[in-house]
Amino acid sequence: MPRPAQNILSPRIIAEAALGIVERQGDFTIPGIAKQLGVNASSLYHHVKGGKNEIIDLMRAVLYERIDLAPFAATDRDWRDRFAEWVRAYRASMAIFPEALSLLVRKPVDDETTLKLYNAAFELLNEAGIPTEAQVDVLTFLDILVLGSALDSMAPTPLWIPDGAEVPALARAAGHGDNPDRSLRGLEIAIAAAAEYILGLGREASSSRGS
Amino acid sequence: MPRPAQNILSPRIIAEAALGIVERQGDFTIPGIAKQLGVNASSLYHHVKGGKNEIIDLMRAVLYERIDLAPFAATDRDWRDRFAEWVRAYRASMAIFPEALSLLVRKPVDDETTLKLYNAAFELLNEAGIPTEAQVDVLTFLDILVLGSALDSMAPTPLWIPDGAEVPALARAAGHGDNPDRSLRGLEIAIAAAAEYILGLGREASSSRGS
Repeated sequence: MPRPAQNILSPRIIAEAALGIVERQGDFTIPGIAKQLGVNASSLYHHVKGGKNEIIDLMRAVLYERIDLAPFAATDRDWRDRFAEWVRAYRASMAIFPEALSLLVRKPVDDETTLKLYNAAFELLNEAGIPTEAQVDVLTFLDILVLGSALDSMAPTPLWIPDGAEVPALARAAGHGDNPDRSLRGLEIAIAAAAEYILGLGREASSSRGS
Repeated sequence: MPRPAQNILSPRIIAEAALGIVERQGDFTIPGIAKQLGVNASSLYHHVKGGKNEIIDLMRAVLYERIDLAPFAATDRDWRDRFAEWVRAYRASMAIFPEALSLLVRKPVDDETTLKLYNAAFELLNEAGIPTEAQVDVLTFLDILVLGSALDSMAPTPLWIPDGAEVPALARAAGHGDNPDRSLRGLEIAIAAAAEYILGLGREASSSRGS
């Protein structure tokens, strides 16, 4: 006798189905997930009692749990390399489902996987000497880079089509580099600018502490 | 006799209706706009022959045409101030309808209003001495900041809820500044870091040209 469908359900299977639906449709519904998995909506609620909000958390966890945090804490390695890897890894996870960004960003970060991903970044800020009371603001800058770059990964190539408009500075610039690598090159500039800024801020804080 | 409904339609009225629907639902359909405006879908197509793509362009133009470009080109004013104002103005327009971001970002920039907004930024990069062939990459960095900050404006307060998780660096940092101003403070850090990076790159380029 086949096992009833709800026994093969798990929060993870539900989250992955939801991510797939968001990718295709920009949003998801509980009945939509149930239909895709061939179960009743009530079976889903048995596994995700928090409903849609809980599923968004699970989606975020599925996206982030593939990221190995250990290398970010390996202080024998160059800070800049580890910082760049953190931004690239977080951005790559986000860019898998950029359609989910506006859902994910509305939710507080309260699941362990995402909290630990952020904790790794706060440890990098500690290491760079950023004072505790400035770290939330600097981390927000990093969030901006990650979210923005994940969104920008959806932009078309070419991005600018200046035909006929009187935009000489744009037309001249867009002749160089408006190609499929544009988004990733922009991310690398963002990483370089952020690293420079953070290390500078850390040095300033050290010297004002007289160390 | 009342005028037929299609005579009070205009591309602008259609774009504003579409923006309102995107704000509520995350996406829009032509029949949805027609229903809201109390007209037939065929009347809409009479005004926006390009359909959904043309409406997305019009939405973007409505968002941006409120931005006065003249102050960005006033070279008697400090470059940093004008640069910061460009980023803030573009971000504020985007943050009005952050739900539309994933639609807007998929479209090439080919409408005059958006092209001119970008042209103003390329002029600021010229002024800072960024070589033409590097400008698309640097502009992409600015796009990342604007898109990311507009998305981040939808994040809740508090953003991080570390209850119980073993995330000491995060728990310590989040005690300072995880409040409703967090997103705008992060934007100001992004602007300061970007300005510093761009001016530095411009100085490097000038000195390698031997000027």
